[in-house]
Amino acid sequence: MVDIIFWLIPLASVTALIFAFYFYRQMKKKDEGTDLMKKIAGFVREGAMSYLKQQYKVVTIVFIILALIFAAMAYFGLQNNWVPFAFLTGGFFSGLAGFLGMKTATYASARTAHAARSSLNQGLQVAFRSGAVMGLVVVGLALLDISLWYLILNYFIDAASPEQKNMIITTTMLTFGMGASTQALFARVGGGIYTKAADVGADLVGKVEAGIPEDDPRNPATIADNVGDNVGDVAGMGADLYESYCGSILASAALGAASYQILSLEQQTKAILAPMLIAAVGIFLSIIGIFLVKTKENAGVKSLLRSLAFGTNISAVLIAGASFLVLYLLGIENWLGLSLSVVVGLLVGIIIGQSAEYYTSQSYRPTKRIAESGKTGPATVIISGLGTGMISVAIPVLAVVCGVIFAFLFASGFKLGTFDFEHISSGLYGIGLASVGMLSTLGITLATDAYGPIADNAGGNAEMSGLEPEVRKRTDALDSLGNTTAATGKGFAIGSAALTGLALLASYIEEVKIGLERLGTTTIEVGDKIIQTASASFSDFMAYYEVHLMNPKVLVGMFIGSMMTYVFCGLTMNAVGRAAQKMVEEVRRQFREIKGIMTGKATPDYARCVEISTKGAQVEMLFPSLLAIIVPTLTGLIFGVAGVMGLLIGGLSTGFITAIFMANSGGAWDNAKKYVEEGNFGGKGSEAHKATVVGDTVGDPFKDTSGPSLNILIKLMSMVSIVMAGLTVAWSLL
Amino acid sequence: MVDIIFWLIPLASVTALIFAFYFYRQMKKKDEGTDLMKKIAGFVREGAMSYLKQQYKVVTIVFIILALIFAAMAYFGLQNNWVPFAFLTGGFFSGLAGFLGMKTATYASARTAHAARSSLNQGLQVAFRSGAVMGLVVVGLALLDISLWYLILNYFIDAASPEQKNMIITTTMLTFGMGASTQALFARVGGGIYTKAADVGADLVGKVEAGIPEDDPRNPATIADNVGDNVGDVAGMGADLYESYCGSILASAALGAASYQILSLEQQTKAILAPMLIAAVGIFLSIIGIFLVKTKENAGVKSLLRSLAFGTNISAVLIAGASFLVLYLLGIENWLGLSLSVVVGLLVGIIIGQSAEYYTSQSYRPTKRIAESGKTGPATVIISGLGTGMISVAIPVLAVVCGVIFAFLFASGFKLGTFDFEHISSGLYGIGLASVGMLSTLGITLATDAYGPIADNAGGNAEMSGLEPEVRKRTDALDSLGNTTAATGKGFAIGSAALTGLALLASYIEEVKIGLERLGTTTIEVGDKIIQTASASFSDFMAYYEVHLMNPKVLVGMFIGSMMTYVFCGLTMNAVGRAAQKMVEEVRRQFREIKGIMTGKATPDYARCVEISTKGAQVEMLFPSLLAIIVPTLTGLIFGVAGVMGLLIGGLSTGFITAIFMANSGGAWDNAKKYVEEGNFGGKGSEAHKATVVGDTVGDPFKDTSGPSLNILIKLMSMVSIVMAGLTVAWSLL
Repeated sequence: MVDIIFWLIPLASVTALIFAFYFYRQMKKKDEGTDLMKKIAGFVREGAMSYLKQQYKVVTIVFIILALIFAAMAYFGLQNNWVPFAFLTGGFFSGLAGFLGMKTATYASARTAHAARSSLNQGLQVAFRSGAVMGLVVVGLALLDISLWYLILNYFIDAASPEQKNMIITTTMLTFGMGASTQALFARVGGGIYTKAADVGADLVGKVEAGIPEDDPRNPATIADNVGDNVGDVAGMGADLYESYCGSILASAALGAASYQILSLEQQTKAILAPMLIAAVGIFLSIIGIFLVKTKENAGVKSLLRSLAFGTNISAVLIAGASFLVLYLLGIENWLGLSLSVVVGLLVGIIIGQSAEYYTSQSYRPTKRIAESGKTGPATVIISGLGTGMISVAIPVLAVVCGVIFAFLFASGFKLGTFDFEHISSGLYGIGLASVGMLSTLGITLATDAYGPIADNAGGNAEMSGLEPEVRKRTDALDSLGNTTAATGKGFAIGSAALTGLALLASYIEEVKIGLERLGTTTIEVGDKIIQTASASFSDFMAYYEVHLMNPKVLVGMFIGSMMTYVFCGLTMNAVGRAAQKMVEEVRRQFREIKGIMTGKATPDYARCVEISTKGAQVEMLFPSLLAIIVPTLTGLIFGVAGVMGLLIGGLSTGFITAIFMANSGGAWDNAKKYVEEGNFGGKGSEAHKATVVGDTVGDPFKDTSGPSLNILIKLMSMVSIVMAGLTVAWSLL
Repeated sequence: MVDIIFWLIPLASVTALIFAFYFYRQMKKKDEGTDLMKKIAGFVREGAMSYLKQQYKVVTIVFIILALIFAAMAYFGLQNNWVPFAFLTGGFFSGLAGFLGMKTATYASARTAHAARSSLNQGLQVAFRSGAVMGLVVVGLALLDISLWYLILNYFIDAASPEQKNMIITTTMLTFGMGASTQALFARVGGGIYTKAADVGADLVGKVEAGIPEDDPRNPATIADNVGDNVGDVAGMGADLYESYCGSILASAALGAASYQILSLEQQTKAILAPMLIAAVGIFLSIIGIFLVKTKENAGVKSLLRSLAFGTNISAVLIAGASFLVLYLLGIENWLGLSLSVVVGLLVGIIIGQSAEYYTSQSYRPTKRIAESGKTGPATVIISGLGTGMISVAIPVLAVVCGVIFAFLFASGFKLGTFDFEHISSGLYGIGLASVGMLSTLGITLATDAYGPIADNAGGNAEMSGLEPEVRKRTDALDSLGNTTAATGKGFAIGSAALTGLALLASYIEEVKIGLERLGTTTIEVGDKIIQTASASFSDFMAYYEVHLMNPKVLVGMFIGSMMTYVFCGLTMNAVGRAAQKMVEEVRRQFREIKGIMTGKATPDYARCVEISTKGAQVEMLFPSLLAIIVPTLTGLIFGVAGVMGLLIGGLSTGFITAIFMANSGGAWDNAKKYVEEGNFGGKGSEAHKATVVGDTVGDPFKDTSGPSLNILIKLMSMVSIVMAGLTVAWSLL
């Protein structure tokens, strides 16, 4: 029975990939428009591909070094032999997801612009279906890899008992997650620095100094800016969400294996498969949702948004219902509680998304107020944007707090009054399932997310090709629609990171246990009792390593974790600042030295700007990304298991909150500027407009570089700790 | 022997107060200058006093309500009867310290300006000695209250054993600390909103729009701005550091009582007195240091800075040596380890101070780079200022991490390899002593800190009275000197808050223990063992309440704690933004409606601006301050002891780091502007100057409102939890 049900997972994966290919072919058949449009799209595509190649080269070196370290650990018995391979494939597929999504996006932009010449709806169809390619590629590849590795490891791994085999399989698969996270962090940081250096540079000189519109072909940085949208917002986001999706499924599977092994082998296997099955069902329902996104030919923007929301909501409602059915049919113990946990995750995701919309959309007071403070200049715009962003963390945090408590209670057998710590692992399993629930509709939510940059690029293409202003207006409408859905999408990514991060704590302890056994430590001493390592509970390990809040090692670990968040953000912010400054100087130089740019008689040197962004991103991405790998390792070597757990929790709580703050501040500044541009407080060209442009520029690295990298940072630090657990257990200074 | 040594503490206190009075009289004897100078100083003094009266009215109501709640708790046996009184006196004396310091400052400003007409050195003498009044009042009052309460409680309290009596005395005195913290938070938040609303408002319209210099009498907000410096930077800082100083001493005393009670009654009493004695000796050495600050009549700014540094450093070196002597003579067990802990605290304070100077002084690269990014406009100034501030947390965090570990190791008997948890309380005692060490030179460091706003006000007075430009230049030199010392002072306050916050965790558990005993819970069950509550160790309580990192209650508590930091900062930032906007509108209105202001023929309506700031501060300070009291109480009632400890640690780690970030970003922006004004990157009036003015304005609430409130917030949340522990123990939902 379980064996047959398993095949639903690869089936869903293949279905996703087939539909992705179908949508891709559909898009490719569309007309790409005029020769100039084709030429510009070609420039952008070329720049994006060459950047990605460059980036993959650097990342490949990092991956090879890390894989060698893991191989050495395996050689010395601190890890199993599968780890280096799992790590490499995770990285490969994460990169592949970003690459395929970006390839699609670069083919789609001119086609979207051309379609928008006919109507808004035509434009939406091309952009949204192209976004769907990305969504389906991400979920399809993720489930493909997961099911393949599950089969491979199942075939090859040998263990004392089938239950233990399941444990080894699931924890080994987490290294696959670490590969995905490493790739994703490089993609987000590198792509984020690239896109924002180009964007900020292009805006500062073009819009503010030279007074030419966005995406004007006279601006030398304009191609780099459009390339940036693809490498940052598309390829970066693809790798990011691939990582989130895999991370939540794999963390839940590992927790399922741990918490259900006491029941029976069958129940344990079911608990491993449950998160994958929910994800698989989510794929089918996402595809249904994608087909439901249809509008009438003469529909307005509001009707488009309703249509997108309709598709997403239908998928969410269906998946909520389906999770009850799937878990019931699977016959897993406490299916009702687990289903409720899945629903809790969905609800938390929706609340975070709604809250993001409230704080960042110009339809509501917070953003309007930021726009209004533009009347008194840029300083008050920055102050109120930062203030509003900081306040905006309250609702998401409270939602996650409630989500954690309820998912835990439902999954651990609904014991109110006191937590039953015998069931702590099943409670954490519930938290893991909640994060799977939150991401189960990723196929469609990512589609609504990824079409934003496609529309943005289409607008760029329209502007540069000199299409009718009507076309640009339509692509702008699509783009601003994309801003709202993107804020929601970021909320999901951050929320799921918080839940997955908590679930990964349990996987860390599991790996510590495996590490102890590998070293031959068969018993641990807790208080006066001697406990078998194999049968020790989470609480026993907490007591053994004294992972409580009066242990200075835990406390300093937490300080270091919180610090990491800030240092990481600071480094990436400064990287954008530095690269943007170089871009500004280059653009100013070209305006000065190449005569005839402003009159359109001479062509700017686009390639030089692309090169500056590429170089800046490559140089600047290494240090912050490597820090995420080095700091957890060093913390483990100095402060041991207690220090590492402190680090993870400190990084998680500060990182989660900073990520929301940055995403919401950035989004609100962007839309405050749009609100002024719509004619409020003096409209375009007014003092308020200039002030909000400053806000928007500051918000760029907030929402597209530092902020979205944080959710990857959180998980990567956990994954690194998990992989390095063997080392920490074998040796630590204090 | 111990009885005699005790009297050193009140003696030091009285000495400090006598010297404070002496310096005050000395200052009052100086000439206040021309009639116009006197008149302006009178305006500012009047405005400041009337604001403080208004603020104390509001705060008094809050205090009465809280005291009634504590009385009710005492009535129901959840606290002892002394708590409401201790709470009220703590609040009263904290307010008194701020009031006296501010009174001195308002008398000193015109006198400093007048003295600066003779020479820079004369100006420094008046300003610095007036700052010393504040420093000595704070430390004098603090030790006076502490020793008085110690005597009173010793006389009245009855307990089963003298050791237990010591425990009750020290934990009761912590409520005195809560009173001080509550008052300090209101003073910092209210004063911070007041001063920055006036400052930002005055700058935005005056400097940027009307193009008139700072403190120009034609600017209607200029009196409010000068009043703000007094109520925010002087009264607020006084209450703040009074609270820090008391907090560190009281927390250490409570820990000393807990950790040394197993040795003997005499050792326990010595451990209680040790932090007070170090503070007492620090007072004497600070006074020596103050007298050492002397310069030649024709000295330059650099020589002044050297002179200030000389006084401070001599005090620090002397106190390091003296602490060995004092603890040796006291005959306390492990005197060497404890002395080393004190020195560790001093070193950490110096490292944090040096790092603050590096990141905020225009002599170093970070601030120069921020200034340089002004060439590309305000957006890049903001981005690089935020980035640099975030990176700047690394050194202070690592310093605190090392400090925690070393202070813990030294005080707990220097056990490397593994922490001996039998000695956990003595280790935490060491951390407490480190924070006392860090603040032991407060008498002189606060003097170098408080003279900054006095010099600032003197400059305002000089400008408004139309004194020679030379005088303004001199007061500006004094002011910018003050910026550097202020950054160092803030570093000390934040660093000590982190250490005190950790030490207070132990006091919380002590209070939980007392709460259990009060409820008649004489035994707790840990694992399979039944342990007497009275003899249970910290580790036992950690196990009993499952305060480990896999308990979802701990985890959600941490999320809430981190959230509190951000929401608090967001609320205070927005409060400044809102109040500043009202100020801007009022100033614009006056320029528009009152004819002849700009030509100097009509006097602006200063009082209206003072009123706007007062009202804004009063309305806006309540909610964030009350949140700091309500959230820990509610968290305890819902999530119990485990949730509260999570909350405290989450708030501590995020709050500590955010406080450094805000202080350093703000300081760097301020000095980046000054660097441009010194003639770099185009100097005054250039684009770079305008851009850095925006940075400076954003930095104002960072460094003077939200940032410095955070260290009080951290401790207030701890103190509230300690006072409410009885309630949490008696009842919690989950």
